[in-house]
Amino acid sequence: MAKLLLEAIRREPAVRRPVWIMRQAGRYLPEYRELRRAHSFKALSGNAELAADVTLMPLKRFELDAAIVFADIMSPMPALGIEFDFDPGPVVANPIRDWDGVNRLRNPDPDAVAPEVMDALRITRAALPDNVALLGFCGAPWTLAAYLVEGRGVKDFPTLRAFAAERPELLDALLSRLSDLMGRYLIGQAQAGADAVQIFDSWAGLLSLNDWRTLIKPHLESLLETVGAAGIPRIVFLQNAPHLVDAYAKLPAEVIATDWRMDLAELQRRYPERAVQGNIDPAILLAGPKATTERVRQLLDSTDPNGHIVNLGHGILPSTPIASVEALIEAVHGES
Amino acid sequence: MAKLLLEAIRREPAVRRPVWIMRQAGRYLPEYRELRRAHSFKALSGNAELAADVTLMPLKRFELDAAIVFADIMSPMPALGIEFDFDPGPVVANPIRDWDGVNRLRNPDPDAVAPEVMDALRITRAALPDNVALLGFCGAPWTLAAYLVEGRGVKDFPTLRAFAAERPELLDALLSRLSDLMGRYLIGQAQAGADAVQIFDSWAGLLSLNDWRTLIKPHLESLLETVGAAGIPRIVFLQNAPHLVDAYAKLPAEVIATDWRMDLAELQRRYPERAVQGNIDPAILLAGPKATTERVRQLLDSTDPNGHIVNLGHGILPSTPIASVEALIEAVHGES
Repeated sequence: MAKLLLEAIRREPAVRRPVWIMRQAGRYLPEYRELRRAHSFKALSGNAELAADVTLMPLKRFELDAAIVFADIMSPMPALGIEFDFDPGPVVANPIRDWDGVNRLRNPDPDAVAPEVMDALRITRAALPDNVALLGFCGAPWTLAAYLVEGRGVKDFPTLRAFAAERPELLDALLSRLSDLMGRYLIGQAQAGADAVQIFDSWAGLLSLNDWRTLIKPHLESLLETVGAAGIPRIVFLQNAPHLVDAYAKLPAEVIATDWRMDLAELQRRYPERAVQGNIDPAILLAGPKATTERVRQLLDSTDPNGHIVNLGHGILPSTPIASVEALIEAVHGES
Repeated sequence: MAKLLLEAIRREPAVRRPVWIMRQAGRYLPEYRELRRAHSFKALSGNAELAADVTLMPLKRFELDAAIVFADIMSPMPALGIEFDFDPGPVVANPIRDWDGVNRLRNPDPDAVAPEVMDALRITRAALPDNVALLGFCGAPWTLAAYLVEGRGVKDFPTLRAFAAERPELLDALLSRLSDLMGRYLIGQAQAGADAVQIFDSWAGLLSLNDWRTLIKPHLESLLETVGAAGIPRIVFLQNAPHLVDAYAKLPAEVIATDWRMDLAELQRRYPERAVQGNIDPAILLAGPKATTERVRQLLDSTDPNGHIVNLGHGILPSTPIASVEALIEAVHGES
C-alpha cells in the first residue's frame, strides 16, 4: 500500500494529505504518562523494546500517517563520549567551550551510534502497517551545539552566541564533528527502516542571517547532501526563525517544516517545487476541538494540498486534550 | 545644546550617531547590584528618588546620549487594580482569562497612573545635562496582555496563544483597555519631561502575521496615533519577530528598533524614511571589548548614519564586562 507521507514528499497527487504530530508519542497521552511513572525518559528511550512500544502508542489511538522513532536529539551523543542527563531538557555534564573540549570528543564507532535507536526502528518497522511511514530524526548540528556549548537550554543561549562570536574556528570544528556524526546516524536509521528523516533545528533562529550563512549553513548543507546522496528523503524543521525561512527553503531538502508563525501558503507560492510541513499552532489545541477544527480547515483551505504534510508548528503540549487531536485528524481526513 | 538622539529620530545629519543601551541601569553595574542588596527591584522602581538615582547611574560612568527612566513595564498596572510581584520577571496575582477579569479592571484616575514614574522623570530631567535625551517607555498592549493572561513569563506563552484563539473578543477588550491606559501613561511621561518614548513589544512574535493583523495591530496602532497626536516621538521595539518586521516598519512611529537577528542595513534600504535603532547582539559583549569593537564597527560600516540610534538588540546581560560597554561607546564616538 502506498504511503501518503512519501507521496507528499514527492509532491505527487494523493487521495488526501498525510498527517502526523511532532511529539505524538508524548506526555499528552495518558498511557505514556502511565509508563513514565515507572521509567525515566532516559530509561524509556534507552530501551529499544520500550521505545518501540512508545513509538507505536499514538498509532493505536489515532489514524496517523507516520510514526517517528521515540528518541531524543541527544541519543547519539554518547558515541562522541558526551555525558548528559534530562532536567527536563538535556543537561550536559561538561559543556564544550575550548579546544580541549572538542579534541576530547571520541571518534565514533559507526556501529555503536545509538544502537538502541536502530533496534527500536527495526522493531517498530516490523509492527507498523505498510501504509504508515516510519520517520527517523536527528538534531541539526547547530541545535546540538547549542546544548553542548551552553550546557542546557537557557533563554536565547547567550553563552553560545558569545562563543560563536569569539571562537568561530572552534564552533566550526564542533559543527563539523556533529555534521559527520549526524550523517552516519541518519543513514543508519534509514538502513534500520526509516522511510525518511527529519532534522530538527529548534534553535536555528539565534543568529542573524549573515552569521548563520558564515558559521552554520555549510555544516547543515553538508549533512543534507550526505543524506540526500544516500537517497533518503529529508525534512528540515526550523523553529522560531522567520528571518531564515527563505535560506532554509533553498537548502537541499525535499520538505521544509516551519513553526506556526510562518504563512505556509505564502511559502508554497514562493517555493512551488518544495514540499512543506506544518503548521497548526499547538496552543490552538488547548482551546479545544472546535477551535482546532476551525484552524485546521483554514490551513487546508489556504494551502495547496500537493506536497503538504499536515502537522503542528511545534511539539504537542502536554496539557492537550485528546479530543483536540481527534478533531485535528478528522479535519484532515474530512477533506478527501 | 542639541540632543543627538532627537536629531537622529528626525533623521537630521549630525556630528555622530547617538548611543544608549537597553537596561543600561541594570545588574551589569556594580553600583546597581550594591543598591539592590538593600532594596528589592519593586522598592527601587517604586521610589522616585531612588529610581532617579538609578536612572542617572550609567550616565555617571558612560557618555550616553539618553537616559531611560528606571521603571518596569508593569509599573502602570496598579492603576487598573492589577496586583503583581517579580520573580524575577512579573508574576500576576490573578491572571485575566474571563470577562470577570476584564470587567474587574479599575477605571484609572489619570493623575494616579504610576505617579512615582512621573516624579522620577521630573527629578531626572532636572539633573540631566541638556544634550542628553530623557526617554519614557511602556510595554506594548500585547506584551502587557501576555503577562496578564499567562500570569508570568512562560516559554512561548501557550495559555496566551490558546486564549487569543478561543476568546478573541475578550482579548480585544483587554488590549483596548491597555492601549488607552498606555496612551495616557506615555503622554504623562512626556509632560513630566520625557523627550521621546519607547514602546517595548518584547513578545510581539508569538503569533503569525495574519493573527497579529487581526487581533493586535489595531490596538498598537491606536496607541501610536494617540502618542503621535500629542507630538511625542515614538520608538517601537519588537523582539524576536522577524516575520512582523515589515508590518512594524509601516506603523505610525518615527523609529523602528529591532533585536540582533535583523539586518539593520537591509531595513534602512527598505524603509528609507524610517529611523532605526539597534542592534548589536548583547551576547557579543560577553566575548569582551575586542569582539565588541569589531561588531560595532561592522554595524557602523554597513548602515546609514542618518537616522540610526546605536543600541543593543536586547537588554544588556547581567554578566557583561564594563570594558565591553566602554568599547561599544568608544567605537560609536570614534566614528565622528
